[in-house]
Amino acid sequence: MINQVALVGGTHGNELTGIYLLHKYRQYPKLIGNNNFELELFLANEKALKANKRYLDRDLNRSFKLTDLSDDSLFGHENELAKDINQKLGPKGGSRTDMIIDLHTSTAPMGINLVLTKTDTFHLMLADFVQQRMDNVSITLEKMPDHHFLMSVAPQHVLVEIGATAQGQLRQDVFDKTEETVQLIFKFLNLYNNHQLPQPSESIDIYQYFDVMFLPTDLNGDIAGMVHHGVQDRDFSLLKNGEPIFTLFNGDEVIYDGEDCYISFINEAAYYDDKKAFAMSRKKTFHIG
Amino acid sequence: MINQVALVGGTHGNELTGIYLLHKYRQYPKLIGNNNFELELFLANEKALKANKRYLDRDLNRSFKLTDLSDDSLFGHENELAKDINQKLGPKGGSRTDMIIDLHTSTAPMGINLVLTKTDTFHLMLADFVQQRMDNVSITLEKMPDHHFLMSVAPQHVLVEIGATAQGQLRQDVFDKTEETVQLIFKFLNLYNNHQLPQPSESIDIYQYFDVMFLPTDLNGDIAGMVHHGVQDRDFSLLKNGEPIFTLFNGDEVIYDGEDCYISFINEAAYYDDKKAFAMSRKKTFHIG
Repeated sequence: MINQVALVGGTHGNELTGIYLLHKYRQYPKLIGNNNFELELFLANEKALKANKRYLDRDLNRSFKLTDLSDDSLFGHENELAKDINQKLGPKGGSRTDMIIDLHTSTAPMGINLVLTKTDTFHLMLADFVQQRMDNVSITLEKMPDHHFLMSVAPQHVLVEIGATAQGQLRQDVFDKTEETVQLIFKFLNLYNNHQLPQPSESIDIYQYFDVMFLPTDLNGDIAGMVHHGVQDRDFSLLKNGEPIFTLFNGDEVIYDGEDCYISFINEAAYYDDKKAFAMSRKKTFHIG
Repeated sequence: MINQVALVGGTHGNELTGIYLLHKYRQYPKLIGNNNFELELFLANEKALKANKRYLDRDLNRSFKLTDLSDDSLFGHENELAKDINQKLGPKGGSRTDMIIDLHTSTAPMGINLVLTKTDTFHLMLADFVQQRMDNVSITLEKMPDHHFLMSVAPQHVLVEIGATAQGQLRQDVFDKTEETVQLIFKFLNLYNNHQLPQPSESIDIYQYFDVMFLPTDLNGDIAGMVHHGVQDRDFSLLKNGEPIFTLFNGDEVIYDGEDCYISFINEAAYYDDKKAFAMSRKKTFHIG
């Protein structure tokens, strides 16, 4: 039984869509609908929102490892905020919250991307339920021991990543897709609680990250080129060995030399801090149930 | 004769395209080409670039009125920087620089937008020259006494505004269009200096701003809705009286009640500070020469 659900927005302060969906539901609670669980609307990083930045000191969504939550030597806004959120929604490992839905956006045209950290029946059925009812839904898996995501505070969780939208911008198409996804997840939870879930698909395809490609840099560490126009905006398509992936400022092209893979977060503006060009994943089929 | 030209990038610190075009030309000066004028590569706001922000204290591109440049009571990074730039490239009114090309990007799909502040023959011929040689070029006019733009430091100037790209992002398609536009402007200046300009078009259509539409707000001053999906991404198209322009969070639509006009900078991320939804302009035909 899922009793306590937190809908989280603003884990990244410049991703306005989730933040304003919370705002809408606070102002018009009837639009949430009737549910057989308690719903908490939770704004994660208000200071980053006010600064219109992803974060002030450290990415909040990389700050929820148990080792970090219990490390008193870590300072800065997000490290303290993570501990505070862990008290409010958690604590991780023995959480008062059963389920967290964490709302994000991307500057890449990812469509609707659901990120899981677990492949148990509950999470696979949830992802399948949404994918069967909306267009352009992809599922990715970021499995790791002691996860750093905010949502890992609760035992059940899903991250909703929708794009493309610029940072600090509210697009109705992205907003509407976010709300539709959230309402489908609510519907799934209601049916789950009532033991009325429909038969799931036999299997589901999930993208599993195995590596990241970095932007080319020069001897000073400065960016030396750009994501190739032939790769830009091709999120969740297959990148083949031998394709050009970068155009250098000197005019040369860099050719991809590696296993064929699915690429996403292509040229994501939020990833320039680390000079990441795109994420690389393999597609794997999971049997459901 | 145009002897001294400044190519300016980074007037807004999170618009990377112009900044990296300067970077490219510094590293590979041969790619600039041969010109019959002196070219200076000028990075305007390095501190804002390092902070990945449009500006620190005040929009630099609103800080070049003569009254502000001579006002010693104005403090903050950009007010001081404007005075410094005015010394380096200007001074405004008696400038050592003949021409400034100022490179910008927009999060809206503006295509290639050339912004003029003057409609003399030189500027009309320049805009026409580019428009005849590239697709999807629009010309806008922002005429005002004692202009606040950085480029107004030099008597001849053009602002190049290209989109769509997110802030803090480098897209090859936008970068390539920016470089192509810059090279066409260089070509125009070379021909102008040699008295070899080709016959211009008879006339040119220019968008003239007359108003700005603000986002809807509630009693607290918070955003109460979004740019309507039917308006989003329609930059430089005609908005007609009676069309929906906003979708409020309560589900209502706001209908446009005003003169038919051309809209641009639709849902521009940089304009959320002022809660601007889009700019409104009239199209006017100018005879050239």
